[in-house]
Amino acid sequence: MKPPLRIAIAGLGTVGAGTVKLLQQNAELLAARAGRPLLVTAVAARHRGRDRGVDLEAVRWFADAAALGRDPEVDVVVELIGGSDGIAREVVAGAIAAGKHVVTANKALIAHHGTALARAAEARGVALLFEAAVAGGIPILKTLREGLAANNVTRIYGILNGTCNYILTAMRETGRDFVEALKEAQELGYAEADPSFDIDGVDAAHKLAVLAAVAFGSAVDFAGVHVEGIRHVSALDVDFAAELGYRIKLLGLARLTRDGLEQRVHACMVPRSTPIAHVDGVFNAIVVEGDFVGRIMLEGRGAGAQPTASAVVADLLDIAVGRWSSTFTVPASALEARPSSPMARHVGAYYLRLMVVDRPGVIADVAAALRDEQVSMEQMIQRGRRPGEAVPVVLTTHETEEAAMRRAIARIDRLDSVLEPTRMIRVENL
Amino acid sequence: MKPPLRIAIAGLGTVGAGTVKLLQQNAELLAARAGRPLLVTAVAARHRGRDRGVDLEAVRWFADAAALGRDPEVDVVVELIGGSDGIAREVVAGAIAAGKHVVTANKALIAHHGTALARAAEARGVALLFEAAVAGGIPILKTLREGLAANNVTRIYGILNGTCNYILTAMRETGRDFVEALKEAQELGYAEADPSFDIDGVDAAHKLAVLAAVAFGSAVDFAGVHVEGIRHVSALDVDFAAELGYRIKLLGLARLTRDGLEQRVHACMVPRSTPIAHVDGVFNAIVVEGDFVGRIMLEGRGAGAQPTASAVVADLLDIAVGRWSSTFTVPASALEARPSSPMARHVGAYYLRLMVVDRPGVIADVAAALRDEQVSMEQMIQRGRRPGEAVPVVLTTHETEEAAMRRAIARIDRLDSVLEPTRMIRVENL
Repeated sequence: MKPPLRIAIAGLGTVGAGTVKLLQQNAELLAARAGRPLLVTAVAARHRGRDRGVDLEAVRWFADAAALGRDPEVDVVVELIGGSDGIAREVVAGAIAAGKHVVTANKALIAHHGTALARAAEARGVALLFEAAVAGGIPILKTLREGLAANNVTRIYGILNGTCNYILTAMRETGRDFVEALKEAQELGYAEADPSFDIDGVDAAHKLAVLAAVAFGSAVDFAGVHVEGIRHVSALDVDFAAELGYRIKLLGLARLTRDGLEQRVHACMVPRSTPIAHVDGVFNAIVVEGDFVGRIMLEGRGAGAQPTASAVVADLLDIAVGRWSSTFTVPASALEARPSSPMARHVGAYYLRLMVVDRPGVIADVAAALRDEQVSMEQMIQRGRRPGEAVPVVLTTHETEEAAMRRAIARIDRLDSVLEPTRMIRVENL
Repeated sequence: MKPPLRIAIAGLGTVGAGTVKLLQQNAELLAARAGRPLLVTAVAARHRGRDRGVDLEAVRWFADAAALGRDPEVDVVVELIGGSDGIAREVVAGAIAAGKHVVTANKALIAHHGTALARAAEARGVALLFEAAVAGGIPILKTLREGLAANNVTRIYGILNGTCNYILTAMRETGRDFVEALKEAQELGYAEADPSFDIDGVDAAHKLAVLAAVAFGSAVDFAGVHVEGIRHVSALDVDFAAELGYRIKLLGLARLTRDGLEQRVHACMVPRSTPIAHVDGVFNAIVVEGDFVGRIMLEGRGAGAQPTASAVVADLLDIAVGRWSSTFTVPASALEARPSSPMARHVGAYYLRLMVVDRPGVIADVAAALRDEQVSMEQMIQRGRRPGEAVPVVLTTHETEEAAMRRAIARIDRLDSVLEPTRMIRVENL
């Protein structure tokens, strides 16, 4: 058997402790599969004393994660600290510079600095792998980079944030409004005390930027992602979605258009008949459309210590066996810096919900606003009748350009009989 | 750029032609990803003249596939002839003996001779890869072997035959009976003129035997698979399944029990709430349950020239890059020859459909037969009343051992008031 792979782990939070646990619990299996032992030889964490449920007696401790990253007795550094800059970035850059392989679960770091770090890793001839950064235990990056590598990817989309999916699922199943469902998610530990990173779509956008780079061979472009969250999704919208045959999901979607790379994260109405509509609760799923393979969907747990550890250790196995290859499918130097396809040019169908005064002529005014911007209505629902009072009116459009849709919404919102800003949700007929 | 990978293709049926088409159409992409061109330099097929929609002008032709397999000007042989023995086996064994890498889509060959061929390949230091043999375009073998390699797999199951899934989906959606749905599948090209290989479960069993070997590090054991098909599934059963909250799917399932390796292919009732229940038509799906990752599902097209070519070329890319590793996750010499867990020891829930004479005392007799074998009933439905005539009675059981269930069915079938052999479908509460 070959000599052990010496692993240093920077950061012993839940994922760090889970990774150590996996490496210890499945040590025999891993050694058989790698042809060599995978050994944790050093760790860095702020608090040494804390009980993490794993045996770290024989392991060297570093208070300074950056020093750990440069340690000569280590083959690979696992960065599980988090954050796009600061110490996490320093550990990763330092380890690469010191000629060590790096595995990280840090989506923010890769979304912001992935291209530069991949270039540095390639220049030093070391691996930079981050399967755990996207969709937790789902091996989507390996699938894109290797399993589906024969294909031109035509589109990729997915449910990339378990917190949002849990909230939207709870809203649908219980009829609750957003605020209540969020509160429940927080009580269950599925949402943070400050949930904005998840519910405003930033976390999903980090993951989408990484996915798009791997799928399309583009330089990672987080700034180019159009990001919206789910705060504006109301129980009323969830109801109307069901009535129209849709479910509401926060999706990240990316594809190449004639204008460049389109990357967007926002709430979507998806047909109930499409597989991703049935991915509920904290589960994540990613759909890849390839020119030969057609549609492939991967579903699984997108977060949690154990699924994330599964992905981290899969990367370590690839390094142990020596079967790692380019970080982003092609060499980092060959990544294309594509322009970001502007959202104003996006073409799609739309759901609009208006709150209007129930009186004659309102629908005619709304229809005229749409007509004036060449937006073609597909269907319209006005539920109930309360003459003189506020009622919701819902409509869906045929495919139209986003810029025209926005102009039409601005016209609608200027109408006297329209009482609140119109709510818009994009319809994705996947 | 490194020298080209020289590829020989044995068999130019739809998958062979699709593979050549992919290699030509996406040549630039593949070269960028592999760091070297992937070139088809030789082919073997019986009929040279036939138009296959691909350019084979510059390629050397062999009438004898076995000679192609030994050709010194070739790095890798792709076997797309099919069949567990005969020429396909000869080509693969010959290519390995001649020191060439082998890629094959031949599930029957691997199900019957996988362990021996993998040993031969390892002894010669060449790759033997067969991603396309299981579930077409879905990269499930790479996922098991690499993406989820940090896990002990606790169970694996899936929809492995698109023909059966198409038929069962059509039965549910249209209310048709099996024979009519099969006829439609044949007209659409989803079923062969002689469909027995698919509808009797043999094709799914080949795939399951391969999956189980990769998932559990067991020697491939096709003979150990318990195989049933879907001929006995009636429109009535499909209806009752819906009423009970289930859908009927032909699944292949494998897990380790205290008795050994359990491998079974048969029609199952699966709860409508489980993701695999929503995989319809010709799509395949595989669920892997791992000790750290939890439940992962992969869904996609399980057959067809283009998805299969996607899998074949993914294997070729792995060979071109040099990132292939053990055929079955661990070295072939380390595969364990586990005993086959006997079906009589299987523990699960069951659905029974009886055709009985509608008269007092029938249900009491049936209940007594179950009680006498310690089988505990969960629910019972008798729909409609037609005194003195034949009516269906349906019941489901709590978990019980298969041997006891079979004894109880034998008792039931001996009752005077039971008019036809009882139909049994296993319930999988996934």
